[in-house]
Amino acid sequence: MFLLRDYKDILKKIKNKKPLIHHITNYVTATDCANTVLALGASAVMADDPLEVEEVVIHSDALVLNMGTLNQQKIEAFILAGRKANDLGIPIILDPVGVGGTKLRSEALKRILKEIKVSVIRGNMSEIKHIYGIEEMTRGVDSISDSKDGGKEISKAIAQRHKCVVAITGEIDYISDGNQTFSIRNGHKMLTNITGTGCMTTSLIGVCCGATKDIFMATALAISIMGIAGERAYEDLQDKSGIGSFKVHLLDAIGGFTIELLEERGRIDGLSY
Amino acid sequence: MFLLRDYKDILKKIKNKKPLIHHITNYVTATDCANTVLALGASAVMADDPLEVEEVVIHSDALVLNMGTLNQQKIEAFILAGRKANDLGIPIILDPVGVGGTKLRSEALKRILKEIKVSVIRGNMSEIKHIYGIEEMTRGVDSISDSKDGGKEISKAIAQRHKCVVAITGEIDYISDGNQTFSIRNGHKMLTNITGTGCMTTSLIGVCCGATKDIFMATALAISIMGIAGERAYEDLQDKSGIGSFKVHLLDAIGGFTIELLEERGRIDGLSY
Amino acid sequence: MFLLRDYKDILKKIKNKKPLIHHITNYVTATDCANTVLALGASAVMADDPLEVEEVVIHSDALVLNMGTLNQQKIEAFILAGRKANDLGIPIILDPVGVGGTKLRSEALKRILKEIKVSVIRGNMSEIKHIYGIEEMTRGVDSISDSKDGGKEISKAIAQRHKCVVAITGEIDYISDGNQTFSIRNGHKMLTNITGTGCMTTSLIGVCCGATKDIFMATALAISIMGIAGERAYEDLQDKSGIGSFKVHLLDAIGGFTIELLEERGRIDGLSY
Repeated sequence: MFLLRDYKDILKKIKNKKPLIHHITNYVTATDCANTVLALGASAVMADDPLEVEEVVIHSDALVLNMGTLNQQKIEAFILAGRKANDLGIPIILDPVGVGGTKLRSEALKRILKEIKVSVIRGNMSEIKHIYGIEEMTRGVDSISDSKDGGKEISKAIAQRHKCVVAITGEIDYISDGNQTFSIRNGHKMLTNITGTGCMTTSLIGVCCGATKDIFMATALAISIMGIAGERAYEDLQDKSGIGSFKVHLLDAIGGFTIELLEERGRIDGLSY
Repeated sequence: MFLLRDYKDILKKIKNKKPLIHHITNYVTATDCANTVLALGASAVMADDPLEVEEVVIHSDALVLNMGTLNQQKIEAFILAGRKANDLGIPIILDPVGVGGTKLRSEALKRILKEIKVSVIRGNMSEIKHIYGIEEMTRGVDSISDSKDGGKEISKAIAQRHKCVVAITGEIDYISDGNQTFSIRNGHKMLTNITGTGCMTTSLIGVCCGATKDIFMATALAISIMGIAGERAYEDLQDKSGIGSFKVHLLDAIGGFTIELLEERGRIDGLSY
Repeated sequence: MFLLRDYKDILKKIKNKKPLIHHITNYVTATDCANTVLALGASAVMADDPLEVEEVVIHSDALVLNMGTLNQQKIEAFILAGRKANDLGIPIILDPVGVGGTKLRSEALKRILKEIKVSVIRGNMSEIKHIYGIEEMTRGVDSISDSKDGGKEISKAIAQRHKCVVAITGEIDYISDGNQTFSIRNGHKMLTNITGTGCMTTSLIGVCCGATKDIFMATALAISIMGIAGERAYEDLQDKSGIGSFKVHLLDAIGGFTIELLEERGRIDGLSY
């Protein structure tokens, strides 16, 4: 299968290259994001002072911009690091945490999308809809189809507009590069019961994009890894309401991901249209 | 029993309303506080830039002001968010972490109590005594009775002065609204062996206060939840000195809290005087 | 055995004194560092606003300066807190996280070593080599011997130059006061698979130095505690790739450290030269 061959190749490259993922991120999920990156055999560096982010980017294989616990200084750091990454051809993964909730976040997002070329945007439906909405506003939002939440259409439309890969994660995940779109039905609702699984998914995308030039497949693989890890973590739980144990099992399961698990459990639909 | 009926009602409201708890907090315990909130079925948002906190408050059901890893910008955020919460009638829960230790914290506390109307103050005996002391100073601190640490008198006195609920947590917890005072004897000393259990208790108070107008009962319930969860987490421990495992079990036990457990284990004395 | 007697004495002093360790540190590993300190029976306080760090130092038994997620304000806090600690004779433990990676970090390090007298520097080989290199530059770096990575020579040379204890942690750990040098072969490579074990080791050094005036032995003991805890945590793992479980076991094993375990497992070579 074409997909498995590509995925195998990315996993092998991660093992060999041990990509370094530079995060400018929030203080709520930073520890878990770092451990997620390490679980796949890659390395993480968190650095956010505008005075040093450009130098950190130089040594990195991917740059994650996570908008949680946002502040003005972090926005400056996003722009400086992002421009440097663009100059060097280093992929940028944007997590627009909470966008739409405040002017600070909406303005920051606009500025990022204007001044930086991002490779991937990953968010939940509400965040991604906001990205869609604010830019559609003058043209109306009628173009959203009446399909369940419009995930396919929205991810495709934003991907085309920003010439990047867009991932909407939720009960069903949608990944689009504007041309092809995958939908993935792995995962478990317990993933929404602990903090940081969205951020961790974004960090996994960083790892995969840090190892290959195939940004679309890298993004899809990362989302499958998290989904399947979530399923296995839940299966391993004795106390099914135990979020402390679930988090421990989840990190274990990310570290234990194999291509065989994907072959066995992967629920991926490739939708070309 | 009147108490159980009220508690049941609050737990039901949490389930239905899934209150959103806005935290302006420290980076040491933020992850654990977020997961504690999620364990009860509520949602947490951490945001502390003065430029956005007022907007975040608007969408929230309770506001937690936690003074850990304090800095000047966070104090500005406290004031702005707190005033907005007061305007909107959103309950504010204050955790005066480390107050009395530095001028920055003592001045911040004074300013908060002067400019904002808080609904609940939760601290350990040393922090709460400091609040009592600094304002009693001109009148002397003789009014503290000679009861064991004076927990009952101090919580009541501060509750009356600031017209709020005051909770002192420790081996015995005291909760007073200035009129009635509960003392709770649940919990386990292992709770003092991991970082963040005080902050997590404050976040639980936020969840309960975000679901009901009965601030006193909400505060008492939250403290019982943490105490009983601590007992169960310790019982589940194989390695009795294992703080890593204890923390995992504690989050599990918070998520597994039920009214039946409270009925069975609750050690609550209602003291009217 | 002379070494065991000294170690026993330090452990006993930690139990009795419960030293308070002031950290100015990063937001990625702060939670784990605090819990590590608590696991040994000591206390941690994290405070980094320049307005309050001097007051916090006054109440502390050791000061940990950790350069992770560095920013300009934190550098100011380092200097203010460090000078106050020097005035009061409180030991300072420096963790030069990522030094060499950016100008901000290199300049910060230079300033710290110029304006503050540190008691211990702990880093990995790359960080410590950078400290060695920048100051050797004018004289060339030829003086590094051709022994495996030169750990012994470098730790000794920096210890002599800065009149402090230097610890290089890795597969083999080197601890030198410029006169005697220990090498320790405990630990497990799994320790490099989770974030924060370096920072946690530095915090353990803080705890041990907060309890005794014998900085060299305190540093060596702390490194043995982490190494042996790492071994035991790995042995306890069912899923040998599980970093979530490993982290839980590691905190448990730090809390369960005893002098008997050291007697049984310690792989310490004292090298005088």
